[in-house]
Amino acid sequence: MSVTAAQGFTAAGIAAGIKENGGPDLALVVNEGPRRAAAGVFTSNRVKAAPVRWSEQVLKGGAVTAVVLNSGGANACTGPQGFQDTHATAEKTAEVLAGHSAGEIAVASTGLIGLLLPMDKLLPGIEKAAAELSPHGGEKAAIAIKTTDTVHKTAVAGGTTADGTAWTVGGMAKGAGMLAPGLATMLVVLTTDADLDAPALDTALRAATRTTFDRVDSDGCMSTNDTVLLLASGASGAVPEYDAFAEAVRTVCADLARQLIGDAEGASKDIRIEVINAATEDDAVEVGRSIARNNLLKCALHGEDPNWGRVLSAIGTTSAAFDPDLLNVAINDVWVCRNGSVGEDRDLVDMRYREVRITADLAAGQDSAVIWANDLTADYVHENSAYSS
Amino acid sequence: MSVTAAQGFTAAGIAAGIKENGGPDLALVVNEGPRRAAAGVFTSNRVKAAPVRWSEQVLKGGAVTAVVLNSGGANACTGPQGFQDTHATAEKTAEVLAGHSAGEIAVASTGLIGLLLPMDKLLPGIEKAAAELSPHGGEKAAIAIKTTDTVHKTAVAGGTTADGTAWTVGGMAKGAGMLAPGLATMLVVLTTDADLDAPALDTALRAATRTTFDRVDSDGCMSTNDTVLLLASGASGAVPEYDAFAEAVRTVCADLARQLIGDAEGASKDIRIEVINAATEDDAVEVGRSIARNNLLKCALHGEDPNWGRVLSAIGTTSAAFDPDLLNVAINDVWVCRNGSVGEDRDLVDMRYREVRITADLAAGQDSAVIWANDLTADYVHENSAYSS
Repeated sequence: MSVTAAQGFTAAGIAAGIKENGGPDLALVVNEGPRRAAAGVFTSNRVKAAPVRWSEQVLKGGAVTAVVLNSGGANACTGPQGFQDTHATAEKTAEVLAGHSAGEIAVASTGLIGLLLPMDKLLPGIEKAAAELSPHGGEKAAIAIKTTDTVHKTAVAGGTTADGTAWTVGGMAKGAGMLAPGLATMLVVLTTDADLDAPALDTALRAATRTTFDRVDSDGCMSTNDTVLLLASGASGAVPEYDAFAEAVRTVCADLARQLIGDAEGASKDIRIEVINAATEDDAVEVGRSIARNNLLKCALHGEDPNWGRVLSAIGTTSAAFDPDLLNVAINDVWVCRNGSVGEDRDLVDMRYREVRITADLAAGQDSAVIWANDLTADYVHENSAYSS
Repeated sequence: MSVTAAQGFTAAGIAAGIKENGGPDLALVVNEGPRRAAAGVFTSNRVKAAPVRWSEQVLKGGAVTAVVLNSGGANACTGPQGFQDTHATAEKTAEVLAGHSAGEIAVASTGLIGLLLPMDKLLPGIEKAAAELSPHGGEKAAIAIKTTDTVHKTAVAGGTTADGTAWTVGGMAKGAGMLAPGLATMLVVLTTDADLDAPALDTALRAATRTTFDRVDSDGCMSTNDTVLLLASGASGAVPEYDAFAEAVRTVCADLARQLIGDAEGASKDIRIEVINAATEDDAVEVGRSIARNNLLKCALHGEDPNWGRVLSAIGTTSAAFDPDLLNVAINDVWVCRNGSVGEDRDLVDMRYREVRITADLAAGQDSAVIWANDLTADYVHENSAYSS
């Protein structure tokens, strides 16, 4: 399914030789029209890779013809030469696709920071990818953007307008490390055959990422390269209700975000942190992130230890409104902490499954938020210390 | 040396039976006078253990006769009963020492959160400790407050007044996990035989902790129990110059803080992060902490990989003033990143030693700060997932 689930798109994924192991490393997604409206959300890291700086400019125009994505190199912290290389990538793609402007070609890269891309391999790779473009190329594109991902990630949703015209939103994602709020080395391309203009796409995409990718916090680290793009071809002829469309975009984003957490580097647990009864949504998010980033808690959950003291300790470092003597915490639905003190017997908590649910009740209001995180494992340490990434 | 290096103090460290392994777990430090001025700094975690809430009240009076410290239980998140237990501990100590008020007895605890202390063992332990009080008891006290510490930590400094009278500042510390800004399960008692009043002690102690314990960030986690106390007996008769005294307190704090980092749970590297040419000291501290807490970087350094891209990525998440294209980063004095891009050859960086020095040049001003951190290792994960602590 992936980026070619929606009509009006072709895609390809090939091995250009950027990765030393010879695996697929270049993806091309082309919007065949008739519309070319687009929106994008990028990393909030102030150290931005060259392709992020390029694509931010492209998206200001509200139109994208094609996206070129490479794994095997982030093209981040590469100075003026790195930016020139991104520019050359867009120019080459425009030339190969014929009749298009480089100013409508978005570029995304992922891999090691601080190395220049092998342009002698990347540029011929674009020709090769263009030759293999297909309305069934979505899976191959999703595979070509993998780095340490163990599986490729795709999702699809859609609806039907009042007059019976069906429309689709599909997407692909990569990312297994550095997942964090404000996004993380996470590349996502969403496509739709609905007919919507760039401002509507932008509103829907920002609303969706705010409560999905932005609330995934695998290891608290934020990448220089995060990119989420939404391209609309209008090929179905359907003009969906905005709310239905926004919900479909959110569904696809939530599905992909959950897949990212499930495939995080070295993780053995997926942790769903729900903060309830917060005074504000911001409070709920702040508390959720603080819990998500507590290394001692992440270790304890890896050891299947329902260590609620570490949850309270994490809550206590925030500026959220709460009274320490009114806090309640449940782990897998057992309220192990009540009124800031010992609650139900912690031995009742069943920690055998991969998914762990933490509920933090701030008893301070009516707002809530869900943050997803992973545990901290020896495998995570090994994977991130044994090689440069 | 420890807390009995200065004149006018006795101390003891005994096994009261609080720890299941029967090891030393109760320390008593008594200020024998003639003065009893004191100052304290406590955790900024809003979830505070009962002994912290008690001792904060005691210190408001500016006088402390004795400090009782126990390992084997934090008495945190223990509700009204926990506070009552701390109160009973102070009452018992006042009774045993005779002629003193519970209102001048500070209490500190460390160990597992969420469990009530075994008062049937702790209270008789106070009698036993009082019977063993000695002007040479400092080492035993330092040993009794250990939890997962592999060594006990003590330090000493001092000076001589213009009229030739010598004065001393000595101290002990425990803490091997949860070290973080705003302190962390770290208990520190400093003593001095200098004759200073409580406000002077308070000023000197806050100035010292601000640039020592508050800039140690082993794993980003902040404890519910952190306590740093400074007690002055005046027994030397010396009234030192404030600046000389403050510098001695800072020296002892810096020495103890360095020992804490050197003994952090599961760590294989001690990381000294110096941020230079920052627009403000706050900027330097924010950037230093962001680098200190980056799990991906901590893994890389464990693997002896001078991965400067992760340093830049961490800097990029802060709100400090800087231009990404002007950032410079050195690892062990090799400037691997210049002007936000590739600098000297990373293979020149010698990573064999335990101490790693990162220098981040923001090129935005003239302020600087040093933050100490540790790497992230499989041993850290193991130690913090294999048992509740």
